[in-house]
Amino acid sequence: MQPDLKNYKKSFEYSYSFGAFPTMELLQSQPDAAIKIFMSKSFADHSAAADISDICSGKGIPAEINDKIINRLSPKENCYVIGVFKKYETLIDRNRPHIVLVNPGNMGNMGTIIRTCLGFGLRDLAIISPGADIFDPKVVRASMGALFKIRYQYFGSFEEYRVSHKDHRIYTFMLDGAKPLEEAQKDCPDLFTLVFGNESSGLGAEFRNAGTSVVIPHSDRIDSLNLTIAVGIAAYEFTKVSIKEMNA
Amino acid sequence: MQPDLKNYKKSFEYSYSFGAFPTMELLQSQPDAAIKIFMSKSFADHSAAADISDICSGKGIPAEINDKIINRLSPKENCYVIGVFKKYETLIDRNRPHIVLVNPGNMGNMGTIIRTCLGFGLRDLAIISPGADIFDPKVVRASMGALFKIRYQYFGSFEEYRVSHKDHRIYTFMLDGAKPLEEAQKDCPDLFTLVFGNESSGLGAEFRNAGTSVVIPHSDRIDSLNLTIAVGIAAYEFTKVSIKEMNA
Repeated sequence: MQPDLKNYKKSFEYSYSFGAFPTMELLQSQPDAAIKIFMSKSFADHSAAADISDICSGKGIPAEINDKIINRLSPKENCYVIGVFKKYETLIDRNRPHIVLVNPGNMGNMGTIIRTCLGFGLRDLAIISPGADIFDPKVVRASMGALFKIRYQYFGSFEEYRVSHKDHRIYTFMLDGAKPLEEAQKDCPDLFTLVFGNESSGLGAEFRNAGTSVVIPHSDRIDSLNLTIAVGIAAYEFTKVSIKEMNA
Repeated sequence: MQPDLKNYKKSFEYSYSFGAFPTMELLQSQPDAAIKIFMSKSFADHSAAADISDICSGKGIPAEINDKIINRLSPKENCYVIGVFKKYETLIDRNRPHIVLVNPGNMGNMGTIIRTCLGFGLRDLAIISPGADIFDPKVVRASMGALFKIRYQYFGSFEEYRVSHKDHRIYTFMLDGAKPLEEAQKDCPDLFTLVFGNESSGLGAEFRNAGTSVVIPHSDRIDSLNLTIAVGIAAYEFTKVSIKEMNA
């Protein structure tokens, strides 16, 4: 008998990783959260299947071949592996730089942002509510499992975040930001926070004086950069020095 | 009687812009390609509807209220305006920097890349076949109409592109690129070409010596950056100086 696994809803205490790569990240980075792994029959001969089975048996996580469950739960074809995991809470690290997303709406964007930030060594994500559900399978999938390697924390408001993290220097990304990105990131302290608004509305005027307001200069042929691109460019620019040291 | 408008196929000689914003870009940047505009009844009171009607009557483009056509053609809800336009061919400008996408697969990515590159003043896009159909409504939509403001050209192979554009200095973006981005863009000439591979497979080893191979340094916690993010960061870094001059 299978547990009564249903299509994901935000109210669930568990969620899913769809695909071999994100599921492998789940097993490697959050093994205690993993409840059960399902693989399709056609995947069983794949070398990744052996890797997944090995980790599961090593950590005592049940794994089984079950095409029926996979077909029922997976959102699209070409999904051969599903991880079921228990949602978990984390606290962002007060001694590391932060990313703050204010009311993020799109789950694919959130996943891409998580993956990109992890790529630049930014592992602490604050989300100002209301915001997309970080454990939605769409986020897990778009992050390619990077979600399992970061810390996240929801806050009721930016003020609530700020009260808890007074030592970070705040940089708010706005179309009418006062400083161009390249200038803003100079003399940036180790503890910084990059703040981004919602996909459609950006950050409200009240963020202009929340710290240093920053603009990514671009031509007036477009009205704004996509949120994911803006976060990617900002994360790249703010971490250039530390990434260089990391790779030295 | 309406023309026999069908759900888009690549073989069509016409395509669609879904949404008010992309359709406005169509009317402003490629009015000669515009065939007809449809608006929903609920949109007619919107100020943008008056703008669209004005441009249409000024340029002799038929525009009508027609919810039936909109409901039939639009891919999702919240689409109140559809532009029907004739596909057109362009040549990339040999006196401008280029972006080359080798076998791009994802239409949303292609649209985002077009929009981002336009934002950084890069208006000439070469696509190496096989590659996504640039006039697919998904590309138009993801580009937010930026597509109508750039020049594009398909080439059968990278060699074919190269033979036509011998004066550009080539930069190929690869996970094992020889030069880090920041170093590579120093002393970059005015005529440069940034080359990116397919979403899944990247650029093959044969691109390593096609010019300067470039890596965007990131931590080893992720295996690669998303294609759109990589193009965004590269476009930002390579155009920093010119964008600064543009905004000065």
